[in-house]
Amino acid sequence: MPRADSALDLTDDVVTLTAALCDIESVSKGEAAIADAIEAALAELNHLTVTRIGNTLVARTDLGRAERVVLAGHIDTVPLTTDPANLPTRRMDAGGVDVLWGRGTVDMKGGVATQLRVAQEVREPIVDLTFVFYEGEEIDSEFNGLLHVQQQRPDLIDDAAFAVLLEPTDGLVEGGCKGTLRAEITTKGIASHSARPWKGHNAIHDAGEILRRLASYQPRTAVIDGLDYIEALNAVLISGGIAGNVIPDRCVVTVNYRYAPDLSPSEADAHVRTVFDGFDVRIVDNAGGALPGLGLPAAQAFVAALGVEVTGKQGWTDVARFSAMGIPAVNYGPGDPNLAHMDDEQCPVEQLRAAEAAMTRWLTREGA
Amino acid sequence: MPRADSALDLTDDVVTLTAALCDIESVSKGEAAIADAIEAALAELNHLTVTRIGNTLVARTDLGRAERVVLAGHIDTVPLTTDPANLPTRRMDAGGVDVLWGRGTVDMKGGVATQLRVAQEVREPIVDLTFVFYEGEEIDSEFNGLLHVQQQRPDLIDDAAFAVLLEPTDGLVEGGCKGTLRAEITTKGIASHSARPWKGHNAIHDAGEILRRLASYQPRTAVIDGLDYIEALNAVLISGGIAGNVIPDRCVVTVNYRYAPDLSPSEADAHVRTVFDGFDVRIVDNAGGALPGLGLPAAQAFVAALGVEVTGKQGWTDVARFSAMGIPAVNYGPGDPNLAHMDDEQCPVEQLRAAEAAMTRWLTREGA
Repeated sequence: MPRADSALDLTDDVVTLTAALCDIESVSKGEAAIADAIEAALAELNHLTVTRIGNTLVARTDLGRAERVVLAGHIDTVPLTTDPANLPTRRMDAGGVDVLWGRGTVDMKGGVATQLRVAQEVREPIVDLTFVFYEGEEIDSEFNGLLHVQQQRPDLIDDAAFAVLLEPTDGLVEGGCKGTLRAEITTKGIASHSARPWKGHNAIHDAGEILRRLASYQPRTAVIDGLDYIEALNAVLISGGIAGNVIPDRCVVTVNYRYAPDLSPSEADAHVRTVFDGFDVRIVDNAGGALPGLGLPAAQAFVAALGVEVTGKQGWTDVARFSAMGIPAVNYGPGDPNLAHMDDEQCPVEQLRAAEAAMTRWLTREGA
Repeated sequence: MPRADSALDLTDDVVTLTAALCDIESVSKGEAAIADAIEAALAELNHLTVTRIGNTLVARTDLGRAERVVLAGHIDTVPLTTDPANLPTRRMDAGGVDVLWGRGTVDMKGGVATQLRVAQEVREPIVDLTFVFYEGEEIDSEFNGLLHVQQQRPDLIDDAAFAVLLEPTDGLVEGGCKGTLRAEITTKGIASHSARPWKGHNAIHDAGEILRRLASYQPRTAVIDGLDYIEALNAVLISGGIAGNVIPDRCVVTVNYRYAPDLSPSEADAHVRTVFDGFDVRIVDNAGGALPGLGLPAAQAFVAALGVEVTGKQGWTDVARFSAMGIPAVNYGPGDPNLAHMDDEQCPVEQLRAAEAAMTRWLTREGA
């Protein structure tokens, strides 16, 4: 029977499968077609039990293993480019490197293809597996399918001892992640005509002290499980003023504090308030980091099996959602993260093959 | 013959006439009806020659006097309030003060009514008179009717020795005005992810030095013809940043320099570039001030006839347009300028009567 255009064949090699996943357009909030295709493909694998929540799929083995591990990846992408669109994918030579080019090849259909190849081929893994294919990662967190599973069916994932998020890491293992806090530091003045400033008080001038504290801030580097987490405190936005002839009565500096995962969100909150002591500080959002958990047996087995370099993850990722559930997690996937979201997104096919091989090696080797 | 609803009767007292002028709605770009009404009223005064340019009217006596004086006022207002609108005008008691309330009562239909009463009543002034009733003062200067006269028919005004702009001054004489220059001071950085700021450079942090220089700036006070012009240099707007997770690559501080009229626009330009030496400075607009010219006989006669306090005008006004033509000019008119543009705009009727009386006294007394 001929397959529908969007059907996936999990017996295809990982490069062909990555291309097929990319070519099912799946910009955030438009993941139904790709979720349908993945669901249909998983339905043919009798060793998996599949649950669908919205356009998010959770597929679990039930082999009675001593440990369970999550392999997670999001199925949405950022929007396509236009004129021309960066889909369909193309296989091309990039300066002597055989690459797959197009939207999603890095972020993160290669990781999803790796998950699906493992689901297809590794029928006797040394641990039980929970695959999560989730929607809505590239947009506001309220749409995040992994969050929806946590909220609606935590039992589907909270029995895992370890999680691998297959976001692009250029083939390295990136342990944990830093937390991220955003705060608005506001100065208030008194508006007046700018020809008569002595009748008012300039809120933008007062913001100079906020910028001075930021410029002189000495960020901490935390070493956890041998990995460096380099903190950062930066102004990311500033706005103030009403009109070109009015002394501004308000200035808001939005700062972003990226903090090592040995700080809790409330400790990060207190730190920012201390740095900006004397100012009006409003915390806008605050998401804790994730500890790498590299001391855990499952993590050590993973790192040993891969045999690649391990570094601290600087950017916040969904590994923090696992960490918040008490599940240590690492980032590992094909593709250069610096190319994520770029118009010219592309991934060396060798990295796709290497990722599949590494995951298979880990999940099948004995005595790990 | 009954008058049309919007017809003006210049024999009405100045308070009634002010109310009638306000009640012809004339928000900027909607001045046709009020210009029609003023044109029709002026047409009945045979001692005046009237020229219309757009919705701006210039009316001139031709009495062969040794000197000519301009009396100028704009006929537009800022937009009305809504729900309820601040028109029609109402006569009311404001804490024991008899006021006329509503849009335009301060800025500046009282001044326009004063001009029209003088046009009606002072048939034998001691100087020749040029009345200018102009559109588009409250919006971008390209719409300014006084500018249009300067550009298209400078001969209608450039033969004057002195000008009075009847903008509200609370009944004082305000001589000249300060100039105003706006500049954008820009810092440039390098964008990067805010979790890895060491890959970028923070343009907002660099703007701290701009704010430091502004906060420590010591403004000059210039004394000209005995009047104080207090300079000011202020940030009026600031903006920078791309997103909450990106190190900002650009920050723009808009500064407003209000400079005494003893500085030319090019001197003011040079001063701002010196203050922000080392930064990218772009001059956005720059309008020179106006000297008070109080040493001139016509100005001295005016001040002597009015017998009121004289101060330096801090805000830029259209007197600078006269100054640029070599015509010294002062601001004098009924209404508290602090109430201009306010929802609750209102003017004591006594100030309207005082303005008419003062102007009449000046223009009719002998041997001035």
